[in-house]
Amino acid sequence: MRAAFLFGAGDVRVVDAPEPAILQPTDAIVRVTASCVCGSDLHPYRRATPMPEGAAMGHEFVGVVEEVGPEVADVRPGDLVIAPFAWSDGTCDFCREGLQTSCRNGGFWGSADVPGGQGERVRVPFADGTLAVVPPGADEALLPDLLTLSDVYGTGWHAAVRGGVRTGIDVTVIGDGAVGLLAVLSAKQLGAERIILMGRHAARTDLGVEFGATDVVVERGADGVDHVKELTGGDGTRVVLEAVGHLDAFEQALGVVRAGGTVSRVGVPQYREGPIGRAQFGRNVTITGGVAPVRAYIGELLPGVLAGDVHPGRVFDRVLPLEETPEAYRLMESREALKVMLRP
Amino acid sequence: MRAAFLFGAGDVRVVDAPEPAILQPTDAIVRVTASCVCGSDLHPYRRATPMPEGAAMGHEFVGVVEEVGPEVADVRPGDLVIAPFAWSDGTCDFCREGLQTSCRNGGFWGSADVPGGQGERVRVPFADGTLAVVPPGADEALLPDLLTLSDVYGTGWHAAVRGGVRTGIDVTVIGDGAVGLLAVLSAKQLGAERIILMGRHAARTDLGVEFGATDVVVERGADGVDHVKELTGGDGTRVVLEAVGHLDAFEQALGVVRAGGTVSRVGVPQYREGPIGRAQFGRNVTITGGVAPVRAYIGELLPGVLAGDVHPGRVFDRVLPLEETPEAYRLMESREALKVMLRP
Repeated sequence: MRAAFLFGAGDVRVVDAPEPAILQPTDAIVRVTASCVCGSDLHPYRRATPMPEGAAMGHEFVGVVEEVGPEVADVRPGDLVIAPFAWSDGTCDFCREGLQTSCRNGGFWGSADVPGGQGERVRVPFADGTLAVVPPGADEALLPDLLTLSDVYGTGWHAAVRGGVRTGIDVTVIGDGAVGLLAVLSAKQLGAERIILMGRHAARTDLGVEFGATDVVVERGADGVDHVKELTGGDGTRVVLEAVGHLDAFEQALGVVRAGGTVSRVGVPQYREGPIGRAQFGRNVTITGGVAPVRAYIGELLPGVLAGDVHPGRVFDRVLPLEETPEAYRLMESREALKVMLRP
Repeated sequence: MRAAFLFGAGDVRVVDAPEPAILQPTDAIVRVTASCVCGSDLHPYRRATPMPEGAAMGHEFVGVVEEVGPEVADVRPGDLVIAPFAWSDGTCDFCREGLQTSCRNGGFWGSADVPGGQGERVRVPFADGTLAVVPPGADEALLPDLLTLSDVYGTGWHAAVRGGVRTGIDVTVIGDGAVGLLAVLSAKQLGAERIILMGRHAARTDLGVEFGATDVVVERGADGVDHVKELTGGDGTRVVLEAVGHLDAFEQALGVVRAGGTVSRVGVPQYREGPIGRAQFGRNVTITGGVAPVRAYIGELLPGVLAGDVHPGRVFDRVLPLEETPEAYRLMESREALKVMLRP
């Protein structure tokens, strides 16, 4: 089959790869009908040292089940399924608590035995635990929306839920990538009254406004912090959703959070240490969030998607065939595209 | 009047100080009947550069109201009152939310106009907002218990509340100082099932066991983390209450918290930066806590103290007259005493 591999910085290629096969009785094989490139794919894309063997890429996909192992009970061949960006057994204590990213037997796509999502077919471990089945009859037009449940919508939702967004609360969202924009949508759905979106790309922040942002702040760093404070009577907002992952975004989050408030991070930190000392302590700031257990949220978010109440799939502004994956990376790295969907 | 001042590292003296007077119509003058030395007093005690003028010390006291300004309504001369370690107007939005340490008009004891608690008398700003009145008739024997509501009990309670301690939960408490021990007591009151106390001083951890600790771990650092993990099936506990403030204690807290769990800090951080990167993010660890708005908790905790249900005042293992404040500091710095009460 054909699949995208990363061979070094800036060097993604679609190559021939072994057909995945059922290795465990709990596996399924899924034929990918849509996948995409994630902002987090760009980190290795920028930095990878040469890898002659290549690394399988992609962790977001929806597809059709082709084959299941003998112990798979809930997922059947022919089902349209959503794969979260982590696979999980669905039965351990962490899975039952809704923290599937800490599953005792789980893992992430793109290892030796578990291919990436940017390919024609994927072996899915623990198919019953990992995959969410879409009820039959879903409109083909909903495919982009369904695909966001694989990562970016669930990740934005995680930020908002962990941040404690509730009716009437004020929120700042840092970052106008797909996750930031869907954190805006999530905050709106959870009842936030004021949503200040910090981002510099007008096309993206315009979509953020359609998703529910009430204010857009284009400045960054100290100027951005000042602007948010100006908008909030000097206090900042009770909740800040940080959807970037760079240290300066985290510092910005700490700068715009109200005393007693919460910074909820879903941008993968590109740093090990950060300001977490007396300044934050004195203001009783909570730091929360983390890698999103999106599997936990699909059941909750799918009905709104199927009903057309929300259209998180609007974050996809380009669609390319799988063979053009290298171009998809280029478009995202250059910020010409917000998020690129890949079709077989 | 006589009051304790810090003049440099290790140099606390009781000296003659100006009598405090009503400066604002919302002030009260309180004659101190009991105060004490705090673990946090030891930080400047260790490090202060020479201060010829001296710095007024002490931020925990109970006393009797001697005089009130014309706008004081709820506090009357003769009232026995508890002073939290921060003064606050009681009316701003932060005070109404229970975050009095962020009061828009508040502050901390020991400034030019507001003396410290380690003295004979104190000017109390915003007396109605700041002071909690003890109902008449409280037994004199309850004085140590009442004094803990000024700081250490409320601080331990804040750790447990912010950490999300609830019925059946497992908790690790780091630190066997007064705050750590009262974090144990608080966790027990809030229903924690298992409470692992990390501390090295047997007399203190013994009291911790009486307060509700189910396990004591004497090792520190990696060995301490390993021991807690061993006690918890390799996972750590869902809640960790960090009552020390040094970076190694925070690192230890991160080491013993279960994925998806919470580290609640009430030890004043003696660091600016710390590990807050991908390792913590990947495990969805929440960092919360901060300087405790103890004023918010007095109403909730006072009834149990007055009823004798709990005896948080057992953390006081020495009582000295105010004139011997230097000895009180020495005893605490050398760890010969857990916490020293000062009487006029």
